[in-house]
Amino acid sequence: MIKAGIIGSTGYAGEELVRLLLGHKNTEIVWYGSRSYIDKKYADVYQNMFELVDAKCMDDNMQELAEKADVIFTATPQGLCASLVNEEIISKTKIIDLSADFRIKDVKTYEEWYKIEHKSPEFIQEAVYGLCEINREDIKKARLVANPGCYTTCSILTCYPLVKEGLINPDTIIVDAKSGTSGAGRGAKIDNLFCEVNENIKAYGVATHRHTPEIEEQLGYAAGREIRINFTPHLVPMNRGILVTAYASLAKDVSYEEVKAVYDAYYGKEKFIRVLEKDVCPQTKWVEGSNYVDVNFKIDPRTGRIIMMGALDNLVKGAAGQAVQNMNLMFQEKESEGLELVPMFP
Amino acid sequence: MIKAGIIGSTGYAGEELVRLLLGHKNTEIVWYGSRSYIDKKYADVYQNMFELVDAKCMDDNMQELAEKADVIFTATPQGLCASLVNEEIISKTKIIDLSADFRIKDVKTYEEWYKIEHKSPEFIQEAVYGLCEINREDIKKARLVANPGCYTTCSILTCYPLVKEGLINPDTIIVDAKSGTSGAGRGAKIDNLFCEVNENIKAYGVATHRHTPEIEEQLGYAAGREIRINFTPHLVPMNRGILVTAYASLAKDVSYEEVKAVYDAYYGKEKFIRVLEKDVCPQTKWVEGSNYVDVNFKIDPRTGRIIMMGALDNLVKGAAGQAVQNMNLMFQEKESEGLELVPMFP
Amino acid sequence: MIKAGIIGSTGYAGEELVRLLLGHKNTEIVWYGSRSYIDKKYADVYQNMFELVDAKCMDDNMQELAEKADVIFTATPQGLCASLVNEEIISKTKIIDLSADFRIKDVKTYEEWYKIEHKSPEFIQEAVYGLCEINREDIKKARLVANPGCYTTCSILTCYPLVKEGLINPDTIIVDAKSGTSGAGRGAKIDNLFCEVNENIKAYGVATHRHTPEIEEQLGYAAGREIRINFTPHLVPMNRGILVTAYASLAKDVSYEEVKAVYDAYYGKEKFIRVLEKDVCPQTKWVEGSNYVDVNFKIDPRTGRIIMMGALDNLVKGAAGQAVQNMNLMFQEKESEGLELVPMFP
Amino acid sequence: MIKAGIIGSTGYAGEELVRLLLGHKNTEIVWYGSRSYIDKKYADVYQNMFELVDAKCMDDNMQELAEKADVIFTATPQGLCASLVNEEIISKTKIIDLSADFRIKDVKTYEEWYKIEHKSPEFIQEAVYGLCEINREDIKKARLVANPGCYTTCSILTCYPLVKEGLINPDTIIVDAKSGTSGAGRGAKIDNLFCEVNENIKAYGVATHRHTPEIEEQLGYAAGREIRINFTPHLVPMNRGILVTAYASLAKDVSYEEVKAVYDAYYGKEKFIRVLEKDVCPQTKWVEGSNYVDVNFKIDPRTGRIIMMGALDNLVKGAAGQAVQNMNLMFQEKESEGLELVPMFP
Repeated sequence: MIKAGIIGSTGYAGEELVRLLLGHKNTEIVWYGSRSYIDKKYADVYQNMFELVDAKCMDDNMQELAEKADVIFTATPQGLCASLVNEEIISKTKIIDLSADFRIKDVKTYEEWYKIEHKSPEFIQEAVYGLCEINREDIKKARLVANPGCYTTCSILTCYPLVKEGLINPDTIIVDAKSGTSGAGRGAKIDNLFCEVNENIKAYGVATHRHTPEIEEQLGYAAGREIRINFTPHLVPMNRGILVTAYASLAKDVSYEEVKAVYDAYYGKEKFIRVLEKDVCPQTKWVEGSNYVDVNFKIDPRTGRIIMMGALDNLVKGAAGQAVQNMNLMFQEKESEGLELVPMFP
Repeated sequence: MIKAGIIGSTGYAGEELVRLLLGHKNTEIVWYGSRSYIDKKYADVYQNMFELVDAKCMDDNMQELAEKADVIFTATPQGLCASLVNEEIISKTKIIDLSADFRIKDVKTYEEWYKIEHKSPEFIQEAVYGLCEINREDIKKARLVANPGCYTTCSILTCYPLVKEGLINPDTIIVDAKSGTSGAGRGAKIDNLFCEVNENIKAYGVATHRHTPEIEEQLGYAAGREIRINFTPHLVPMNRGILVTAYASLAKDVSYEEVKAVYDAYYGKEKFIRVLEKDVCPQTKWVEGSNYVDVNFKIDPRTGRIIMMGALDNLVKGAAGQAVQNMNLMFQEKESEGLELVPMFP
Repeated sequence: MIKAGIIGSTGYAGEELVRLLLGHKNTEIVWYGSRSYIDKKYADVYQNMFELVDAKCMDDNMQELAEKADVIFTATPQGLCASLVNEEIISKTKIIDLSADFRIKDVKTYEEWYKIEHKSPEFIQEAVYGLCEINREDIKKARLVANPGCYTTCSILTCYPLVKEGLINPDTIIVDAKSGTSGAGRGAKIDNLFCEVNENIKAYGVATHRHTPEIEEQLGYAAGREIRINFTPHLVPMNRGILVTAYASLAKDVSYEEVKAVYDAYYGKEKFIRVLEKDVCPQTKWVEGSNYVDVNFKIDPRTGRIIMMGALDNLVKGAAGQAVQNMNLMFQEKESEGLELVPMFP
Repeated sequence: MIKAGIIGSTGYAGEELVRLLLGHKNTEIVWYGSRSYIDKKYADVYQNMFELVDAKCMDDNMQELAEKADVIFTATPQGLCASLVNEEIISKTKIIDLSADFRIKDVKTYEEWYKIEHKSPEFIQEAVYGLCEINREDIKKARLVANPGCYTTCSILTCYPLVKEGLINPDTIIVDAKSGTSGAGRGAKIDNLFCEVNENIKAYGVATHRHTPEIEEQLGYAAGREIRINFTPHLVPMNRGILVTAYASLAKDVSYEEVKAVYDAYYGKEKFIRVLEKDVCPQTKWVEGSNYVDVNFKIDPRTGRIIMMGALDNLVKGAAGQAVQNMNLMFQEKESEGLELVPMFP
């Protein structure tokens, strides 16, 4: 039985972790951390957990938690995990950090985009970027996993095979992403009120969103060199889901079949990545509640570009689901344990 | 391994059955019936099933199906199941009918409210009304189960203990119900288009909705006599969920504690019925995707009435989930097998 | 030109007032009051007003405002208007209060339900309850108008003719109301976040909502005696709209035609109340953005009850629209000036 | 008084035309054409029009209509207007065609993208492309106006000044567009059911959408040569609104101020185009119900690209509002008559 502690269990990603871990055969949640709700019953914060979770919320005591837990999930604002982690803790327990603290290898880049001083840069090199399908073997051996961002997971997986194989010019990549509102978290902000989001769509963080360098770094590894892309997120009036529509110029003349073969080569055996059939566009609803990423593409011979598309549930494959997948890898569990969820429709 | 066939597998309730049965350890779906999509791949009709279901849709051949399946689910329009069932079939296989054909014991009442001639009234007496928490023992022995309606499941379970115990005057019951749009089915009708439903709420079938006699019959059994109630359904701009707000005059002076004790006596040991804590109102979102019914109540001493509330997911406990629960009872499976789904939030 | 000042102009009702008054031929807004956004450009708070409103937000200085404005709208939390009003102010300017401060004639009832001490009870008697269709003549002469609540406007207008004519037993009235989320205001609360409201419905304030005594008082005048009713509000995932489904026992045997004739007698000449055709149920979408209230009813001979239904836009007829209608009456403008808005669909 | 006839008055665009023309001082609707609802009361098809429109729906008799109307709006499927128009009709009345029939000057391009034979190519040259802000003078003299598409209006106006001034390389333009569901029309299709659209987002018509050549043609005029772009539409779970996010490589090094000056030069005096303040992103909700287009841009010095954004209400500036604006120009009315609608929020 893996003993799991969650710091930040009352955010949306934290709560999704609870949902998933409750369905995991070999995991027991031993710590429902939530600085905002200390001593409050977890099921009073999330009424769906009534009669399912009996525990109360606890403080963010990582020291104590390291004694009790085999793995700690930090589903917290940027900066918190970096400020709490140290060698003593990490020698006792594994950490899966759902924040951005250990995703970016270059501290300056992190500090520039996040406007935060990094409190434990000494762990950055050790941290493994937890994109399971790409870094599977490294994750298995990791003590500290940097769980990828929601937008980045979708963006990278959508473009990865074509970048890696050199089929597209990586500097022409433009990622236009659309996200459900749970990605904005459970903070009480006017911008996220129902009446502000409903019947509305907008871009935000244009040319400045912090997932940009993360995508660039990872796709840069695939390209074998530094790259610069455009990334524009949008807020969509729905709870869950990210859709990525990515554009790039083809590096050479390719047919549908050739590109399809590349996607299949990379993802054909991946349980959680589904390369759709010709001309079927990914839809966020088709993956809702599940750990799947649906990807597909369309070549536009008129412009010499390719349009790559990907859809996932931002709280599952984009956060908690991938975190559980990482845990499974780190603890030699079946990779899909607790994640064999059929997408819910409608 | 229970071999299950589904007639009407491409409606929303049918598809939800597929979702649930794919997660059921001891069931195999052997027949994806769908008159509208014969020979089409099931996963082309419901793209969420891509790589999960490989089968093609088949015709509604109950004769053949009876040979192949241990249980047939009919998730079809009213009248179809009654027109297909016969002694030969029912002697070979069990039937769980999600339509209204066998719910109402009085044929005339059925024919009056449904405007359909009943084609096999000889099975009505045998059919067991599949409200698991009320009729558990009978269901275990049944060959033919009439799976309750979505509104009715929620309405009956919300009021049942107080009617049974005589705490309310059953003739004063008024059920004001609100449903998500999946209850209206997947038919291509203007009234159910996104733009007609979104940003809108309306009552419909006022004083004429066909779930009325079903609620009256079942609550009448609890009351020990015939009763007449008011039932008003409303269409709400959401996919899933039914909320029932029911009003009745108290038959005697009772305290919160007394009423709570009654609910607990009936439902305290029921896994899928959660009696909420004082002053917590049920919300459909807190049960979405799960087989739970959340109930609670509030006494209004000013008017001598009690307001009873219940919430469920119309496609799960209101349809497919209850059908699976019935199947589990009929086949001596663990009652919650395949149904241990944590509600998904948000 | 009527000079209008708005206190609380950055709430949803305040902003709707701005929208309506910008379309009013004879009104000029001279004061955009907003304690939260003092000195901020109004169009920065509500970007829809970009290039339409050039003003900045100002403090709640009623003294100064009384000098500048012919009419002051207070779209503020309960208690504020009562704390600011005095004889000097009210002798200089007219006040239309969109809060509850002057709606209830009995101070004790107000203080009991609102848990606030009333700061200027001496004006309660003078205040006219601004339900235009019922109190038109008194409104014309008023200095201080208590603009009715959103739920109450809909509830009262839906039931009024039948109570007044004695066709229903007023003590059997049960009002089940459903509201869009703008009724909850623009405050940054977790409960009103998109992800909490979307795909969800719940009752709230069961047996304790503060619009209850307001409905009772007004329908009590119609009945000629004190009455007690049940009122249950629900939160619906839409921006605007209130739907009321009201139940009552008929006091005598009546036909559809008789009841229709009563509604027509009261509302036939009312521009903003539309009595729908037989069997057409009001829908909030059919009145969105307009000052209309759509009402209809259905007799249930089985139970001897009548179901009365009404729909309005909570921000228009339920708040700002009715406030403008009151202003028009008070200033001898055409009653519909600025309010001839065709409902927007879809 | 301009006598206006509408062919296709029961589609969403047709109904929006009715809403707008009812608020136009000098227009009278003399013909509510609707092949699907002949002889049915218009207000029975659109209940919001109850007591506002008394007329019945009529057949598509353009011959008769030409006698009665000063202007005919055709809000009909592609091909219909082209099949009905002839010299006799057009010599008697003006036509504003909301379909695509006369938008594209090259017949072959039209027939290729629309898969329809053009039935009256002889009028294509005469037809004026009704993008008011660009072609104002020609529209004033036109007999036949091709009202632009919803996506195209938004896409062209968003990019036009920068293409015209040569600030961007037009062949690098990528338009990622997001639309509310009313753009899909009122046809009863499964894809547009509430449950299919709600909580979902998808791209469609990738690399093949028929608004592509229309955008290319118009921006090509601005560029002074043929161009090829990418255009990808998406379906968003909201009723109204189009958001365009357009990407292009800058042709030279420019500052924010320089680009802003260009937008202001083109749109500064345009009532219906609002160039937002720095860093404010257009949101569809801020223009809902109105004829405004909100545009803005962001330079990304890292990639040398500019991100241009535009938002409009697809049924107003994207269809019926622009049609009315065109009518005003053609009939020497004030250009904004009937269109001075304040955006409705929330």
